[in-house]
Amino acid sequence: MTKPEIFPPAGFRFSSIAAGIKPSGRPDLALVQASPGASAAALFTQNRVVAAPVEIGRVVMRSSHARLRAVIVNSGNANCATGPAGKRACQRVCREVARLLHIPTNQVFPSSTGIIGVPLPVNRIIEKLPELTGNSESTPQAARRFAKAIMTTDTRMKIAFEVIACGARRISLAGVAKGSGMIHPQLATMLVYLFTDAVAQPAQLERFLKAACDETFHCISVDGDTSTNDTVLLLASGQSRVALRLPQIKAQFQRALHRICRSLADQIVADGEGVRHVARFEIEEAGSRSEARRIGRAIANSLLVKTALAGRDPNWGRILAAIGACGVPVDPQRISISIGNQLVYRRGRPCHFNLHKAHRVLSQPACRIGVELGRGTARAVFTSGDLTEEYVRINAAYST
Amino acid sequence: MTKPEIFPPAGFRFSSIAAGIKPSGRPDLALVQASPGASAAALFTQNRVVAAPVEIGRVVMRSSHARLRAVIVNSGNANCATGPAGKRACQRVCREVARLLHIPTNQVFPSSTGIIGVPLPVNRIIEKLPELTGNSESTPQAARRFAKAIMTTDTRMKIAFEVIACGARRISLAGVAKGSGMIHPQLATMLVYLFTDAVAQPAQLERFLKAACDETFHCISVDGDTSTNDTVLLLASGQSRVALRLPQIKAQFQRALHRICRSLADQIVADGEGVRHVARFEIEEAGSRSEARRIGRAIANSLLVKTALAGRDPNWGRILAAIGACGVPVDPQRISISIGNQLVYRRGRPCHFNLHKAHRVLSQPACRIGVELGRGTARAVFTSGDLTEEYVRINAAYST
Repeated sequence: MTKPEIFPPAGFRFSSIAAGIKPSGRPDLALVQASPGASAAALFTQNRVVAAPVEIGRVVMRSSHARLRAVIVNSGNANCATGPAGKRACQRVCREVARLLHIPTNQVFPSSTGIIGVPLPVNRIIEKLPELTGNSESTPQAARRFAKAIMTTDTRMKIAFEVIACGARRISLAGVAKGSGMIHPQLATMLVYLFTDAVAQPAQLERFLKAACDETFHCISVDGDTSTNDTVLLLASGQSRVALRLPQIKAQFQRALHRICRSLADQIVADGEGVRHVARFEIEEAGSRSEARRIGRAIANSLLVKTALAGRDPNWGRILAAIGACGVPVDPQRISISIGNQLVYRRGRPCHFNLHKAHRVLSQPACRIGVELGRGTARAVFTSGDLTEEYVRINAAYST
Repeated sequence: MTKPEIFPPAGFRFSSIAAGIKPSGRPDLALVQASPGASAAALFTQNRVVAAPVEIGRVVMRSSHARLRAVIVNSGNANCATGPAGKRACQRVCREVARLLHIPTNQVFPSSTGIIGVPLPVNRIIEKLPELTGNSESTPQAARRFAKAIMTTDTRMKIAFEVIACGARRISLAGVAKGSGMIHPQLATMLVYLFTDAVAQPAQLERFLKAACDETFHCISVDGDTSTNDTVLLLASGQSRVALRLPQIKAQFQRALHRICRSLADQIVADGEGVRHVARFEIEEAGSRSEARRIGRAIANSLLVKTALAGRDPNWGRILAAIGACGVPVDPQRISISIGNQLVYRRGRPCHFNLHKAHRVLSQPACRIGVELGRGTARAVFTSGDLTEEYVRINAAYST
C-alpha cells in the first residue's frame, strides 16, 4: 500500500469549507481548480437510478469535450431521488462556481455524496461559494483538507501519490477518494479524483482509466450495494509538458495509475463500515476472467463468509457453499481452498490443517484466501472486508 | 399464519433422540416412518456443491420410483464437503435403518443439517438407531419432538396443519420445517417435510409441490446464502383413501398445500437468525414475474435495506438504489415506493409523508413495502427479515 502522502501535480488547486450540510458542522464543500486546457476522463455508477450530479456530470463531459476547469463536491447529501428540483439545484451550484471563477458553466463538474432523497440545501452552498473559490491552494495541506471534506462515514482520508521519471522530466500522479459503505463492483458510493500533470488527450485518458479501474475499483466490495453517485474522474493538466506518447512512458504511466487506484481501493475496503479484517480472495484456474470475478464477488458478498471472517473462523464450508450457489457450473471435486498458505480443502476433500494457524492468519488486518477451480487458467483478485456488528450499528442508525 | 399445531396424517409415525451430534446434548436424530406404498416428491438445493445426503436422496428417489418408507434426519452436522467418507457414512446410516425396519435400503431417505466440512459422527448415530426405530408414534407430541430434533440455530419449531373436507371424507396435510440462516430463494438451508394421507402418484405430487414452492419457499430470504443441503419432501400415505382426481379436490389440495408452505416459509423468515422485523415486499407493475422476483430478491438482500429495517428507518432511497442496481432496465421516473399504505416516492419524485407513521409501521413485527415499477402487470411477493447485530453475533461465533 502506498504511504498516504500527497503532493498535488502542477496545475491543480484545492479548497474546502464547512457549509452546514453535515449536521456535525465538519467541512462538507470542496473545490478543485484545474489550469486552462486540462483534459478529463470519467467513469460513473452503473446503477439505473443516478443522482442529479451524475446526470449533469455526464452532460458536462460531453458538452465540454472532456475539458474541465473545476470540480465542485459536497458531502452529507447525495442529491439523489430529489426530482427536477434536485437537478436545478445542482445546475445552480455549477453556474455560480463558473460565474465566480470566470469559466464556462459546462467546464464545472459536480459530485455529491451522502443521504438519498433529501433536498440539497442549495442556499447554504451558494452562500459559501465566494469564500470557497477565493481560497484555493496547490499545497499538500489543501489537498488533504479536500480529501477530508469529501468524507461521509469514512474514518480516514484516502490519498495516494506517485512520481514517474521520464528522462530529465517527471510526471506526477495523485489520487483522492472517499467511500466506506455501498461499496461494490461497478463503482459504488465512491468518489475518486485522480490528478496528473501529464499531457494527454481525453480519449487516451479514458483508456488508461478503464484499464486501471477494471482490476481495482471494480474488484472490491464492502456490502454488495451499488451507489447512485459513484464517480471516478481523472484530470490531466499537461503542466509537466511530458506527453504520454512513447510506449515506455505509456507503460510507466499505466502502472503508476494502477498502483494509485489499487492503493485507494485497498484504503476504501480497509476503512469499510465496521471492517476489522480485509480478505484478499485470489481466484485461480477459472474458465474465464469474468467467471473468476463472478466467483470472487459471490464469496466476497456472502454474509456467512463475511461473518466468519469477523469471527476469524476458518469455516471454509461457507466459502465452498458460496462458490456452489453463484451459478458458475463448478465441479466440487476439482475445487481447492486455502487460508493463508494452508490448504484446507483439496479437490473435493477436506484437509487436516492447523486450526490455530488458520485462526491466526484470519486475525491479521489483511489475509489471503485462495481458491482453485480446476476449470482453466484465468484468474482474478477480489478484495472485501468482514461484516461486523459495527456495520449494522452504523447502518441501522444512519438517517433516524 | 396458520396456528402452530399439528396432527400427523394417518400413515406416518415419528421418533427422535439425542445422539450426541450437537454439543448441547439436545435431540439431534429423528425418524419418520411411512406406511407401505407411500409415494413421494422431492425438491433439492440448486447449489452446485451438495451434501452427501442430497446426492443419496436423489439416487433413492430414482431407484425406489419415489416410494419411500422412512426418512432419517440428523441435525448438528451437514455431512457436506466430507469427501467419499461422508457418502459412505450416509449410506451406512440408511442401510442400518433399513435393516432395523425390515425395508429396502433404497426406500430410506436421508437428510442432514448443521456445520459443513466436519466428518459425520456415524458411530454415535448407528448406536442410537435401535432405540430410535423402536420408539415411533403417530401422536402430535411425537411430531412436535421430531420438529424440535431437526432444529439447528432455529429458536422455534416450525409446524403447520390443514384439513380438507371431501364429502364425507377428509384429507389431512401437515408440515414440519427447520431453517433460520443460509435462507435464500432456490431452497436454502431448509429442511421441509410435508405429509398427507391423500392417495396420489409421485408425478402428481411433484406438480403440486413445485407449484406451492414457487410462490413460497422460493420467495423468501434471510441472508442471501444458499445452502448445500436444502430439501423439501412431500409424502403421501394414501391412508385417507381419497384420491386427488376430481378437479375440485385437486384445487382444494393445491390451496391447502400452498397455505402450509406459506405458513412454514413465514415461520422460517420470522425465526431468521437475529430477525426482529419481517418485511413483505410487494413488487407490482413488473414486465414479467421473473423480473418482479429479481427486483424483490435484490431489495430483500440489500444489506443497506436490511439494516435500515433493523433501525426502523424509512430510508426509501436505499430501496430505490437496490432496484436500480439489480440489472433490470427500470426507469426511475416510473417507480413508486410505499411503506405501509403511505407513498414515500411517486414516479420519480420524493413525497411528503408522515415520518412517525412510517417509523411506526416499520416497528411492527411484520410490515408491507410496496414497489410499483410502471413496466407491466406482473407481480411477486418477496419476504425477508432485517439484519441485526444479533445475526452477526450468531454467525461470527458459529464454529469456533
